[in-house]
Amino acid sequence: MSAEQVSLEALRHLFTARNVALVGASDRSTWSAMIVRRFADFGHQGQLYAVNRDGKQAHGLPGYRSCCEIPTPPDLVIIVVPAHSVASALEDAADAGVTSAVVLSSGFAEAGAEGERLQAGLVATARRRGVTFFGPNSMGFANIAGGAVATAIGTRLPVLHGGIGIVSQSGAVSNEISKFAHQQGMGLSFLCATGNEAMVTPADVIDYLVDDPATRVITAYIEAASSTDRLAAAARRALAAKKPIIVLKVGTSAMSAEVAKAHTGAMVGDDRVFDAACEQLGIIRVRSIEEMMVTAALIEAVGPLERPGIALASVSGGGCGMFADLGEQHGVPTPQFAPETRAKLAEILPSYASTLNPLDMTGAVLQDTSLWTRALPVLLDDPGIGLVVTLMAMPGSEAEMATCRVHWPVIAKAYRDAGKRPMLIGQVIQPMGPEALAVAEESGLRDIVFGMDFGTRALGHLARWSRRVALGADVLAAPAALAEPPDLSGERATLDFLASQGVPVVAGTVARSAEEAQATAAALGGAVAMKIASPDIAHKTEVGGVRLGITSKDVGRVHDEIRAAVASALPDARIDGVIVSPMRTGGLELFVGVTRDADWGLAIAVGLGGVWIEILQDSAVRLLPINKGQAREMLISLRAAKLLKGYRGTAPVDLDRLAEVIVAIGNAALALGPKLAALEINPLWVSGGEIEALDALAEWRD
Amino acid sequence: MSAEQVSLEALRHLFTARNVALVGASDRSTWSAMIVRRFADFGHQGQLYAVNRDGKQAHGLPGYRSCCEIPTPPDLVIIVVPAHSVASALEDAADAGVTSAVVLSSGFAEAGAEGERLQAGLVATARRRGVTFFGPNSMGFANIAGGAVATAIGTRLPVLHGGIGIVSQSGAVSNEISKFAHQQGMGLSFLCATGNEAMVTPADVIDYLVDDPATRVITAYIEAASSTDRLAAAARRALAAKKPIIVLKVGTSAMSAEVAKAHTGAMVGDDRVFDAACEQLGIIRVRSIEEMMVTAALIEAVGPLERPGIALASVSGGGCGMFADLGEQHGVPTPQFAPETRAKLAEILPSYASTLNPLDMTGAVLQDTSLWTRALPVLLDDPGIGLVVTLMAMPGSEAEMATCRVHWPVIAKAYRDAGKRPMLIGQVIQPMGPEALAVAEESGLRDIVFGMDFGTRALGHLARWSRRVALGADVLAAPAALAEPPDLSGERATLDFLASQGVPVVAGTVARSAEEAQATAAALGGAVAMKIASPDIAHKTEVGGVRLGITSKDVGRVHDEIRAAVASALPDARIDGVIVSPMRTGGLELFVGVTRDADWGLAIAVGLGGVWIEILQDSAVRLLPINKGQAREMLISLRAAKLLKGYRGTAPVDLDRLAEVIVAIGNAALALGPKLAALEINPLWVSGGEIEALDALAEWRD
Repeated sequence: MSAEQVSLEALRHLFTARNVALVGASDRSTWSAMIVRRFADFGHQGQLYAVNRDGKQAHGLPGYRSCCEIPTPPDLVIIVVPAHSVASALEDAADAGVTSAVVLSSGFAEAGAEGERLQAGLVATARRRGVTFFGPNSMGFANIAGGAVATAIGTRLPVLHGGIGIVSQSGAVSNEISKFAHQQGMGLSFLCATGNEAMVTPADVIDYLVDDPATRVITAYIEAASSTDRLAAAARRALAAKKPIIVLKVGTSAMSAEVAKAHTGAMVGDDRVFDAACEQLGIIRVRSIEEMMVTAALIEAVGPLERPGIALASVSGGGCGMFADLGEQHGVPTPQFAPETRAKLAEILPSYASTLNPLDMTGAVLQDTSLWTRALPVLLDDPGIGLVVTLMAMPGSEAEMATCRVHWPVIAKAYRDAGKRPMLIGQVIQPMGPEALAVAEESGLRDIVFGMDFGTRALGHLARWSRRVALGADVLAAPAALAEPPDLSGERATLDFLASQGVPVVAGTVARSAEEAQATAAALGGAVAMKIASPDIAHKTEVGGVRLGITSKDVGRVHDEIRAAVASALPDARIDGVIVSPMRTGGLELFVGVTRDADWGLAIAVGLGGVWIEILQDSAVRLLPINKGQAREMLISLRAAKLLKGYRGTAPVDLDRLAEVIVAIGNAALALGPKLAALEINPLWVSGGEIEALDALAEWRD
Repeated sequence: MSAEQVSLEALRHLFTARNVALVGASDRSTWSAMIVRRFADFGHQGQLYAVNRDGKQAHGLPGYRSCCEIPTPPDLVIIVVPAHSVASALEDAADAGVTSAVVLSSGFAEAGAEGERLQAGLVATARRRGVTFFGPNSMGFANIAGGAVATAIGTRLPVLHGGIGIVSQSGAVSNEISKFAHQQGMGLSFLCATGNEAMVTPADVIDYLVDDPATRVITAYIEAASSTDRLAAAARRALAAKKPIIVLKVGTSAMSAEVAKAHTGAMVGDDRVFDAACEQLGIIRVRSIEEMMVTAALIEAVGPLERPGIALASVSGGGCGMFADLGEQHGVPTPQFAPETRAKLAEILPSYASTLNPLDMTGAVLQDTSLWTRALPVLLDDPGIGLVVTLMAMPGSEAEMATCRVHWPVIAKAYRDAGKRPMLIGQVIQPMGPEALAVAEESGLRDIVFGMDFGTRALGHLARWSRRVALGADVLAAPAALAEPPDLSGERATLDFLASQGVPVVAGTVARSAEEAQATAAALGGAVAMKIASPDIAHKTEVGGVRLGITSKDVGRVHDEIRAAVASALPDARIDGVIVSPMRTGGLELFVGVTRDADWGLAIAVGLGGVWIEILQDSAVRLLPINKGQAREMLISLRAAKLLKGYRGTAPVDLDRLAEVIVAIGNAALALGPKLAALEINPLWVSGGEIEALDALAEWRD
C-alpha cells in the first residue's frame, strides 16, 4: 500500500492539466516527438512548452531552460530526461509552482537496487515539494474526454470518444487494450498506464474515475493488488453510482510464508481472496482483454438491468443453440417468456417457429422485415425480460453489408419505438471498421456484442453485476481490536477465548492427572474425547496426543498412554495436561479458518470438514468483517450445501444460528488485532441446532 | 442413422465432379446467378451447363431442356427447382447417366409433414436410380482445393487456400465459420452445409475428408449426432492419420424417455455421452466458432507435438502473466526449462530478466533484435519443449506494422534456422487483413495464434490431442450379445447373472418365510441386510423393503415387518420373498451404471456412490466396450479418486481388480443385447481388495 494516499483534489489537478511543459523535449528524440504527436492525436486542450538544457524550441513548441522561465506557469510537467536527472527536473518544476508531474523516464524500481534508491529519493523530493507525480517508468495518461494529455501510449486514429476508462499497470498491455477497443469501435474517455506507481496507483485512478462523469465504465488491468483500502472504497462508491469496475488481474503471487504455514492459507490462496474481494465489492473479474472490453461496451450501453431476464431474437436456429449452450455455461439468465408473450409470438411468427427463449424467428424474417417490427416489441415488453439481444450476421462482405443496410434500421426502429436502446449480437467476433461503423451510425444501431463466445460471458457479467447493484454496497464496520489481545497458546485457551466472544465451544477441562481425568469424565457422563494440552504442539494426532470415544472405565489408562506417547515423541514440549471433553458423534464437521492476506487483510474460509475440504477444496471465502447474510451465502454456495439442508435422514442444520456463529468467529479474529496470522476452528461440529467448536488454533505473525 | 451408408466412392464422385449442370438456372433468378458466381469465385474446374424448361442459356452458360441433351454427360447436377419438381429433375439427370446431385431447393423435411413425405420420396427415387444426392435444403459444397464447386455459401474474396475443411449442418453457421476464417487469414480446402442430410450426413463428409490429402484439419458444426458409427470409424482413421477432427456441437437434445427413467440416464445425459465419445475417439470438442477455427489453424500449422511442453517467448511481462493464468485454466502444459536452457538464457538476456517459462525477454528485445536470434534457438532446443510460441503485438496501426516489418523476419529466421515453423501469438484477437497478410508472407511467418484467450484454449486442445495421437486409436471388439438374454426380473436374478459374467456379487438367498430367513442368517453369521425380492419393485427403500445391519435374533421379526410394510404400500406387487445377505460395512460404495444413448448406444458411468454421485455428480462416462486401462482412467478421473487410493487410514482399493470388475459389468451389459435399456449396480461395495455388487437392476426397452 502506498504510504500516503494521494488526494482526489491532487488527482483532479493532475488529470485535468491545461498548460503542459515537456521536460527533455528535443527534435532529435523520436520519443519526445511521439509524445508531442499524442497531444494532437488525443486533442489536448491547452498550451504546450518545451524545456531542455539549451532552452531550444522543439517540435515547434517554444523552448525554455527552466520551468521558471515559462511566462504562464504550467499546470503539469512531463519528464522524459534520464533517470538520474529526474529529481532535479522535478525540483525545477516545483520552483515554478508546478504541483503535478508525469515521469515517463525509466531506470527506476524496475531496474534493480540502484533504481529503487533513485525512486525512493524521487518520492521523498516530491513529497517535500508538494508535487504529485505519475510514474516513473510509465506511459502516462490521456484524459480523452477532458482534453488533458500526457502520454506515449500508441494512438489509433480517428480517436473514438466514449465512456470507457482504461487503467493499466502495464504500458504494453494498455496498448493492447486500446488497440482492441479501437478495432471494435469502442470509444474511450480515459486511458493510462501507471508504470512503477511510486505515488499514483491504479486504485487512485479508479477512485478518480468513479467521479469522472465522462467515464461510465472503468476497466483495469492489474498485476498486483495495491492500495486495497482505496480500491475497496472506490468500488463501494462505484457500486452506489451504478458504474461498473471490470478488473483483469493476472499472476497469483507466492503466498506469504507465514500464511502458507497455516492450513487455511494453503487452502485459500491469495487469488481466491482476490476473487472474494471482487465478489464482495461488486467488482467484475475477467480473464482476458477481450472479455473485459466486450463486457465494458455492453454495460456502457445498457447499464444495470431492471428486469433480470435476457432474451435472444435470432434469424438462425444454430445461433439459438450456441447462445443457449454458452449462456448456460456463463450464467446468462434466459427465462422462458410469459404466456401472453408466447401467445402473441405464435400469432406473428411462421407456424413452424417455436416461441421459446432463445427465439428462432427463422429465415422468414430475412424475407419479411416487418417480423422485426412486430415481434421485437413483444419481446421487449415481456415482464421478465430486461434485455433483448438480436442476433444478425455482422457484415463480412459487400453483399452482407447490403443486408445490414436493409435490416439494421428496421431493428433499430423497433427498439426505439419501444423506448429501448437496440442491441445486436454477432455469432463471431468481427472488427468494427469505418464502413460498418458508418452503417451502424446511419441505422441508429450503435451497440454490438461481439460474438457468442465473448458475448455470453459479457451478458453473464452484466446479469451478476445488475443483481449486485440492486443489493447495494455493504459497508460493515469492523469490530475494534482488543486493547490487549490474550495470549492464546493451546487449544483450550483458544476455545475459551472464542466462548468469551460468543462462539459456542465444547465443554472441557485440562486434567493434570489420571485421577482428575477420570473425575472429569465421570462428571461429563458418556464417552469422552481426550487430547494433549500443550502450547508447543499444533498437530496433536501425529504425536499420539488425541484419543476419541473413550468410555469412563478407560479414561485413567488412556490419560497415561497419551502422556507417555507425547513424552516419547516430543520430550521437550511443555505439557499442561490432558483435555477431557464430551465426545460428539453424528452430525457434520465444518472447517472455519481465518487467514491474513498480505493485500486484503483478514479473510474467512468456510467449508465442510474432513474429506470435503481436503479432497474437494469445497470452501467459500470472504473478506472480514462479514454479516449474517453473507455467512449464510457462504454456506449455501458450498457444493456440499445439500448436506447442511438435511440429507438421507440427517436433521437439517440451523443455518441462521450457524451463520451467526461464523460471524462471531470472524469478529473474534478481528478482535485479536493486527498480530493475528490465522485462526482455525476445525472442526466446528454441527448437528441440527447444536453447534460447537471442538478444536481451535491461533497463529501469530512474528 | 442413415438407413444405407453412402460409399466413399460415391462421395468421391460427388465431391470431385468436373462437368456440372445447374437445373433450374435462369437469368431472372438471383439465386441461380449467385450459384454461378460461386463457380468463378471458388475456381470450379470443368464445364458448366444450364438446364431449364425452355432450354435457354442462362448466366452465359449453354442451355438445355434436359440433362440428356447435354453433349458431354455431366458428372453432377445442382438442383434449384421448386421442391415438387426436384424428383423429376433427379429422374431426368439419372436418365442422362448422372449419379451425383446437390439439392439446394428447400420445402422438404424442414417444412413439415408434406415436406417430409416429399423428401422420403426423393430418397426412394435416388436409391432406385443409383443417384447420391447432397441436401435437400442445403447450401451445397465447395471442394476448394479440388476445384469442384456446387454451393450458394457466401464467398469472401480473394478465396484463401489452405488445409482446413469445414463441415456444417447449418447454412447460416457455415457462412459465419467461413467469414471468421477469412477474416483471420485462414485458408480452406473444403466447405459445405449438409442441410437436411437425407442421404449425405456430416459424418459421411468427415469420413471423405479423412482421405482428402488437401484437408489437413477437419472442422464440423453439428446440431445432432447422426451416423455415429461412421463418425466413430472416421475418427479412428483420422487419429491414425494424425488429422484432427474438431467438433462444435450445440443443443443437448431431450433424453429419450426410457433412459431418463433410469437413475443412470438422468445422471449421465446425452451431452456427457457425446463428450465421452469425443474423448474416446480423439475428437476435439469446442464451444464456439472462434475456438474451433483458432484451434484448427494452430494444429494445421504444427501437427501433433513430438515433445509435450509449450513455451512462450514474450516481450511483455503482462503477456506472460496472462498466458500463465489462461494456460493453467485451459490445460496448456508449460513445464520449466531444463537447467542448461536456463543457464544459456541467463547469458543471453538482461540481468533483470528471469529464465522461466513463460519467458519474459523484456523490452530489451525491441531495441536489440539479435536477442531473438540468440534466445529462440535455445528455447526451441529445450528437451521438454515441443512448441515455442512468440508473443508480439500484432499490428493495429501503421507504426505497429513498421515494428512488425522489423521483427517478424528476424523471428521467422530464428525458427527456420532451427528447423522449426515459426508461430506467433497476439495478446488479443485481431483480423488478419491483406496488409498484415502481406507482411506475414514477406517475413515467412504465416502462422499466428489469435489472442491469449482463444489461443490458450487452442494450445490446450493441441496438447491433449497430441497425447491422444500418441496413444493411438483403440478399437475394441464388443463381446457378442447372448443369443437368448435371460429375463432379469428382480435384484437377485440380476446379481446372479452378473456373477455368471465374472462380476463378484454378494452372497444372498431369497427366504420365503421368517424361518428360512433366520436359517439363512444363522448360516451366514454376523449381521445381515434384508430386502424385499419382487420383480415389480425397483425402489425398495421407499416401500419399507430394505433393512440393514440386522442381528440374528431380530431376523425373523424383521422379515415379517418387511413383508407387512410392502404389502401395505404395494398390495398388488408380486413378492418372491425376502433376500438375506451378509451386511457389508466400512469401505466405499461405488455406483456403476450402464445406459443406452439414442445416438451412441451403451455408455457406462462410474462414480462413488451415495452423497458423491447424488450431490456432487462426480462420475466418469465412456462408451462401451471399454478395456481395463480405460476403466482405470475413469476411476482416476473422479474428484473423489483420492478416497480410492486410501484416505485417513482406509486401505487403498485394488484399482486393477476394480477396473476388471467394471469392464466385466460393461461386457455383461453388452451381452444382454439390444433390448437392454439400463443396467445399474448400486452399490458396488469396495473395501481394499474386496469387491462385491450388493444390488443391481436391469431395465428393458419396450
